[in-house]
Amino acid sequence: MSTVFDWIDGRLEQRRRAGLHRTPRVRRADDDALDLAGNDYLGLTRHPQVVRGAVRAAREWGTGSTGSRLVTGSTQLHRDLEERLAGFCGAESALVFSSGYTANLAATNALTGSDTLIVSDRHNHASLIDGCRLSRAEVRIVPHRDVAAVHEVLSGHDGPALVVTESVFSVDGDTAPLRALHQACREHGAALLVDDAHGLGTTGPRGAGALHAAGLAHEPDVVVTATLSKSLGSQGGAVLGPHRVIQHLTQTARTFIFDTGLAPSCAGAALAALDVLRAEPERAEAVRNTASALHDGLASSGLPVRRPGGAVLSLPADSPEHAVAWAARCRDEGVVVGCFRPPSVPDSSSRLRLTSRADLTHQDVTRAVKVIAAVR
Amino acid sequence: MSTVFDWIDGRLEQRRRAGLHRTPRVRRADDDALDLAGNDYLGLTRHPQVVRGAVRAAREWGTGSTGSRLVTGSTQLHRDLEERLAGFCGAESALVFSSGYTANLAATNALTGSDTLIVSDRHNHASLIDGCRLSRAEVRIVPHRDVAAVHEVLSGHDGPALVVTESVFSVDGDTAPLRALHQACREHGAALLVDDAHGLGTTGPRGAGALHAAGLAHEPDVVVTATLSKSLGSQGGAVLGPHRVIQHLTQTARTFIFDTGLAPSCAGAALAALDVLRAEPERAEAVRNTASALHDGLASSGLPVRRPGGAVLSLPADSPEHAVAWAARCRDEGVVVGCFRPPSVPDSSSRLRLTSRADLTHQDVTRAVKVIAAVR
Ligand SMILES: Cc1ncc(COP(=O)(O)O)c(C=O)c1O
Ligand SMILES: Cc1ncc(COP(=O)(O)O)c(C=O)c1O
Repeated sequence: MSTVFDWIDGRLEQRRRAGLHRTPRVRRADDDALDLAGNDYLGLTRHPQVVRGAVRAAREWGTGSTGSRLVTGSTQLHRDLEERLAGFCGAESALVFSSGYTANLAATNALTGSDTLIVSDRHNHASLIDGCRLSRAEVRIVPHRDVAAVHEVLSGHDGPALVVTESVFSVDGDTAPLRALHQACREHGAALLVDDAHGLGTTGPRGAGALHAAGLAHEPDVVVTATLSKSLGSQGGAVLGPHRVIQHLTQTARTFIFDTGLAPSCAGAALAALDVLRAEPERAEAVRNTASALHDGLASSGLPVRRPGGAVLSLPADSPEHAVAWAARCRDEGVVVGCFRPPSVPDSSSRLRLTSRADLTHQDVTRAVKVIAAVR
Repeated sequence: MSTVFDWIDGRLEQRRRAGLHRTPRVRRADDDALDLAGNDYLGLTRHPQVVRGAVRAAREWGTGSTGSRLVTGSTQLHRDLEERLAGFCGAESALVFSSGYTANLAATNALTGSDTLIVSDRHNHASLIDGCRLSRAEVRIVPHRDVAAVHEVLSGHDGPALVVTESVFSVDGDTAPLRALHQACREHGAALLVDDAHGLGTTGPRGAGALHAAGLAHEPDVVVTATLSKSLGSQGGAVLGPHRVIQHLTQTARTFIFDTGLAPSCAGAALAALDVLRAEPERAEAVRNTASALHDGLASSGLPVRRPGGAVLSLPADSPEHAVAWAARCRDEGVVVGCFRPPSVPDSSSRLRLTSRADLTHQDVTRAVKVIAAVR
C-alpha cells in the first residue's frame, strides 16, 4: 500500500549511499571501553555523591516535577539549584530549564524582538540557530570567531542588537574571543549572549566557566546559557544573567512556561555535582591537563590537532566513510570516539571528536593516542 | 548606569499593571495541600515502584546519559523504554526525547518540507506552534476542532500536507475528533500528527492513549507525540509511529541529534510507570471517573464546566485578576488549582485549570468542589 510517508524510504536510501546513515549505538551498563566521546567532563555521572543527590531527590520530591515551573513544577530544589548555580558562576541570577536546548531557545527569543539584529557566529550550536530562527529578529551570520565582522555588522545597524556565540565551540573545541566581543557590544550598545555549555566546569577558576574567566560573569549586558548535562553530569539547562533578564524570562520564555519543570532527580544530581566541584576544584584543572596531554600525544603522532580551549578536540577525516571506519576501528580496539558527519558539523567536513575527562589516567591517554593514530 | 536591558523594566511594569505578572510558587517537600493543578494524573511520581525505577537507573547507569543519543547517550534503558512505549501504545516504533517539547519540535520539522502545508488547530500547544514556525512549511491555522475547515484547506492544496492536533487539549481538556480528522487526511492524502500528551495514561483501554482508543495507533499515515512528564510521572518525550518515520527522525531531527539523551533516572522512572500501569490498568479509569465526579460537583454548584475528555477541566474567570484572586483563595483553603492567564491560554480568557488524579479520594473531590465554588 502506498502511503504519505513513502518519500522517506528514498531519503533513507540516499543517506545510506552518501555514507551518512546513523544508527545509535546502544551502550550496556557494563561497557568497559575507554570513553573519549561523552561529555561527562568531570567524571561525575557515576560519582557516589552525585548519584546520592539524584536518589535523594527522587525519594524526597518524587520522580517528576508534575507541571510547568509556573504551576506546580517549582520545588525548593529548583530554587536552590538556581541560587547555587548563579553563585558558582558569579552571575546575579539563574533560571533552570529542562535542557540546554530549551534554555537556548528561551534566551535567544526573550532577548530579541522584530526590531532586533542578531549577530550569530557561523559555528553556533543547532539550539542557538533554531532559537534565532524562531525569533522574530533579523539574523546575520558572521564568520567564525571574527570580531571585525561583528563590529562591521553592528556599525551598520541602528536598533537593538544581540551578539550570540558559544564560549568553547562544541565540535572543534576552539574558543570565542569573549572580551573582544564584549568590547564590540559595549561600543555599539549591543547585548552579548554566550552559550557556556562546554565552558562550565572546564574553564575558569574552579571550573566557574568562561565568562567568569573573562571577568564578564556579572556584567549588566551579558547573558549566559549553560547545560547541566555535561560537566555537571545530569540533564537540564540554565540561563544566567542580570536579575531583570531572569524575571523577564520567567514571564515570557515559551520553553519555560509551556514545558514541564526539570525532574527532581536531575536537579538533585546537578546540585550534588556543584558540591563536588566546590570541594574538589582540581577536577577542572585535571580535565584541561588531560586535554592538553591528548593534544600533545596526537600532535607528536603527526595528527593535525588544534590546542584545545576546554575538554574538546577534533581530528579531520578524509570523508564521512573514513570517519565512520576510523571510529569503528578505534571502537574495535576498545576506544570510543565521537564520529561527526554532516549535518552535525559546522562545515561539510567529517571528523572525529574527542573529549577529555578529569578521571582519565596517564595510561588511558597514552593508550588512546596510540590507538587513534595507529588505526587512522 | 543605563544598559541594553533597560527596556525590560518597562515590560515587567506593564505586565504587573495588566495583572499578568507571574512568580513561580516554590513547593516544599512536606506541602500537604490538595493538588488539582499538577499533571501527575495517575499519581505515580511518588509511587514506590516508580521511585525505585529512577533510583536503580541512576545507580546502574549514572546520573546523566553523557551525550547525544547518536554519540554516547543511548543506553539499553532508552532502547527498552522505546520498545515498551511503542508496544504499550500499539505503535510500530518509538523514539525518546529529553522532553515532550523537543519531541514536538522534532515531529513537526522532520515530517515537513518547504512544499508541505501544515494545517494546525488554533488551540494547539506552544511546542507544536513553535515546531510549525521552525519548519519551512506553509502553516494554516484552522478553527478549534473544525473538521470541515480541515477538509476545505486540504482541498485547496496540491502537495504534501500534515494535519496537526492535540488529542486532549491541554488547557480546556476537550478532545479532538481524531477519526474524522484521519478520514479527512486519508481523503486528501495528508499525514496526521497527534500530540497525545494528555491522552496517554488517561484515555483508551488501560490508558494506552487516544490513538489506541480511536483505532489509529498503528496506521501508516499517523504519527503521535507523547510526554513522559504527565501520566508517566517522569520527564521526557517521545515520537511514536511507523518504523520508517522513526528511522527518519533518528537521521534528521535536530532536537534528537543535538540534544543530550534523556537522563537514565527519567527513563527508569517512565519504564517503571509503564509497569505499574500494566499491572493496575484501573488507574486510567480512576482518573476519568474522578474527572467526571469533579465535573458533576462543579456543575451542580452552578459553575460553567464542560464534560472532560481526559483529566483536565477548566473554569472561566472574569479577568486575569479574578483568576489570580480565585486561585489564591483556593490555595488559602488548602486546594491548589492552576491559574491560566494570557499568554498561557489559547484565547484571551483567563481561567482556572483543574486536573484529576487517579489517587484522589471521594472526600478530596467533595472538598475541592466545595472550596472552589465557595471562594469564586
Ligand atoms: C554548545 C551547546 N549548546 C547547547 C547544547 C544543548 O544542551 P542539552 O544537551 O543540555 O540540551 C549542547 C549539547 O548538547 C551544546 O553542545
Ligand atoms: C499538549 C502538550 N504538548 C507538549 C507538552 C510538552 O511536554 P513536556 O512538558 O514533556 O516538554 C505539554 C506540556 O508540558 C503539553 O501540554
